[in-house]
Amino acid sequence: MKVERVKGTRDFLPEEMAKRRWVFERIRETFERYNFREVLTPTFEYTELFRLRSGEEVVKQLYAFLDKGGRDISLRPDMTSSVARLYVSAFQNAAKPIKWYYIANMFRYEEPQSGRFREFWQAGVELIGSDKVEADAEVIALFTESFLSTGLKDFTVNIGDRILLDEFARMLGVKDDIGLMRLIDKKDKLNKEEFVKALRDFGLDNGAIEKVLSLIEIKGEPNEVLPKAEELFTSERAKAEIKRLYELVELLEAYGVSKWIRIDLGIARGFDYYTSVVFEAIAPNDLGIGSIGGGGRYDNLIEVFGGKPTPATGFAIGIERLIPILERKGLIPEIKLRPDVYVIPIGKEIELRKTAGEVVSALRRAGVRADVELMGRKLRKALDYADRLGVPYVVLVGRRDFEEGFVTVRNMETGEQRKIKREDLIEELLELLGL
Amino acid sequence: MKVERVKGTRDFLPEEMAKRRWVFERIRETFERYNFREVLTPTFEYTELFRLRSGEEVVKQLYAFLDKGGRDISLRPDMTSSVARLYVSAFQNAAKPIKWYYIANMFRYEEPQSGRFREFWQAGVELIGSDKVEADAEVIALFTESFLSTGLKDFTVNIGDRILLDEFARMLGVKDDIGLMRLIDKKDKLNKEEFVKALRDFGLDNGAIEKVLSLIEIKGEPNEVLPKAEELFTSERAKAEIKRLYELVELLEAYGVSKWIRIDLGIARGFDYYTSVVFEAIAPNDLGIGSIGGGGRYDNLIEVFGGKPTPATGFAIGIERLIPILERKGLIPEIKLRPDVYVIPIGKEIELRKTAGEVVSALRRAGVRADVELMGRKLRKALDYADRLGVPYVVLVGRRDFEEGFVTVRNMETGEQRKIKREDLIEELLELLGL
Repeated sequence: MKVERVKGTRDFLPEEMAKRRWVFERIRETFERYNFREVLTPTFEYTELFRLRSGEEVVKQLYAFLDKGGRDISLRPDMTSSVARLYVSAFQNAAKPIKWYYIANMFRYEEPQSGRFREFWQAGVELIGSDKVEADAEVIALFTESFLSTGLKDFTVNIGDRILLDEFARMLGVKDDIGLMRLIDKKDKLNKEEFVKALRDFGLDNGAIEKVLSLIEIKGEPNEVLPKAEELFTSERAKAEIKRLYELVELLEAYGVSKWIRIDLGIARGFDYYTSVVFEAIAPNDLGIGSIGGGGRYDNLIEVFGGKPTPATGFAIGIERLIPILERKGLIPEIKLRPDVYVIPIGKEIELRKTAGEVVSALRRAGVRADVELMGRKLRKALDYADRLGVPYVVLVGRRDFEEGFVTVRNMETGEQRKIKREDLIEELLELLGL
Repeated sequence: MKVERVKGTRDFLPEEMAKRRWVFERIRETFERYNFREVLTPTFEYTELFRLRSGEEVVKQLYAFLDKGGRDISLRPDMTSSVARLYVSAFQNAAKPIKWYYIANMFRYEEPQSGRFREFWQAGVELIGSDKVEADAEVIALFTESFLSTGLKDFTVNIGDRILLDEFARMLGVKDDIGLMRLIDKKDKLNKEEFVKALRDFGLDNGAIEKVLSLIEIKGEPNEVLPKAEELFTSERAKAEIKRLYELVELLEAYGVSKWIRIDLGIARGFDYYTSVVFEAIAPNDLGIGSIGGGGRYDNLIEVFGGKPTPATGFAIGIERLIPILERKGLIPEIKLRPDVYVIPIGKEIELRKTAGEVVSALRRAGVRADVELMGRKLRKALDYADRLGVPYVVLVGRRDFEEGFVTVRNMETGEQRKIKREDLIEELLELLGL
């Protein structure tokens, strides 16, 4: 081969595409039952759009370039900026809330690893216009049910809170609250010793380090750990936010998804733009795959894009992280790609080849996935090919049958052959196939 | 707004996405009944891949750039090069024919015009491994039926032939046969006088110009115009190809698509890589939209990508050209995006809000598209919003109902309200909705 595929990208073959489509459709149906509606924005935007909002991390990873008109454009690294642009450009006066979803590909120049590619797909939603805890509950319930719709049961949705982390930084007298959050976000990648060292390097004293260690212990069943949070925090702002978390937990119980919900105040999520509730889903696996999706509330973002202050919340599911886990658990059904019928003309005469065309065409019109010999192969080789396809029935169009107005149907499993009148063929095959 | 959308790109809103999805699904079903299977390649490839094959025209239009690793990459301008790469890399020894389809976005830096954008979608197939006329018939029949599956009837599939054009150039003693084909391709954009002048500027004498004018007159019903071609051409190679076209036409009759098939020997198709049969679909319209798709046989292409000589044929349908025509003709059904039920808690108490959550959740689990008040609105405003959504039924969760174990269902069209026991609600609503 002269030219290879580019590093970090993949080709999806038919079996893989069928599985992906199955997963997409489960998630899509779930999004739509929640009355979210699909939107799609361009694959590239002005680089400036992504700079407006994203942390330096994301900007460093952009596929940025000049187009032939000299425009500085980038492939989208995620969908939220584009959706915010779309909202600000035409939907500020629309009835609220706006409930949009997308299933689309994103691009980041990162080192490829398990479940991480340079082109990857996300299925996500944005709920714009509500600052109510109901909106958080709706989005987190949908997040949970999206995974459930794929058959996944062994996962948790861990909820953190940026207001509490912010208050926590204030309690410790830390000015660089974003820096502290980044550090806390990395806790699972370090052992305790390394983590303590990192905190000390960050400038915390022993008392503050103890507090951080007790904060990240606030994780588990909501009703067990939220009381601990009430003890740790003293400010009015923190207390109001904890009360909101209690309401969130109650609403999630009403949605019937409590079983999957955990509190984990040590979650910050990479993006700088989250403002209060943040969450991510973790499914235990031996594939080295961490979070399979995440989201949160971002009440300041619309303003960043030049819109009126507008609260919003949303999430994205990482398809390349979810699918390997579903596969490992055998949750994606075998999807048969073989045709139901294969038609073979026996001979080179145009009448026989035309009859094969007529038969395959009639089958397809009746909704059957059907194929026809296209290689000019002789009978034996054509039957070998049919065997390899795994097709259950073959229709043979031979000279004598043709003259008598018949064709022959062969059951490929038993080898049994039966002559059938041309005009009865479709009906009989539909019956044989149980269609 | 601070940052605009990039020129030549679009945002697809929910109504448009629903229409597009409808069209994609019709075409996808048709492809699958023909036993084509979906593949997807990366959005970008090494620029070199596209240079290997494409005419200068396409290379000039590439979105090409260096990634952060210094790789010279380009967004795909079409899918054929990528599919050829995929085939050569892993499928040369697979059972033939390979039947692949794709529905994906492409990128070309062209001046935007009616039905032409810088990011656009194509639905296409590639059939690799057969040089038989059956393969051409299969692909052209599928091309035709793809349009029919969307309800379009007023269109023709016009078939030309590069071997005949090549023989024609030889007859005229023209060395630059590609140049002559390009000129012939432009015939519909010029009036006769301009066309004759262009031919003269190209170096043809009056006799040759006359011959070109009679060649481009060979268009219409196959059985009427193929005899004219037999008169015009004398070489053995041309006669063999005309015989092949006769067979093609017979097979297409067997497929039941003759009604849409025309011969037009003046079609060359832009790409240099076609080797014999070429075709394109035209649907009369007042939107300034020309061809809505096209394809042909490309028996040399796999070699260009470093593979063993392998015959192949395929087509691509231009989604942005097809959809406006379908819309103008009213062929895309109205797709309702409203939810079926909207649930409103009357009051701020957590019990009522939780009950609303339970109700909407139960409805969704029963397969109903349902929504719930998320803005903390009072009853009157929430009902206004429900009206605007066009939702047929609203479920009201009030204090008194709640205590008695009831909810109230309101028919939004008649305004009629009815108390229903909580435990009977889902069943009754499913019945009301006819689900």
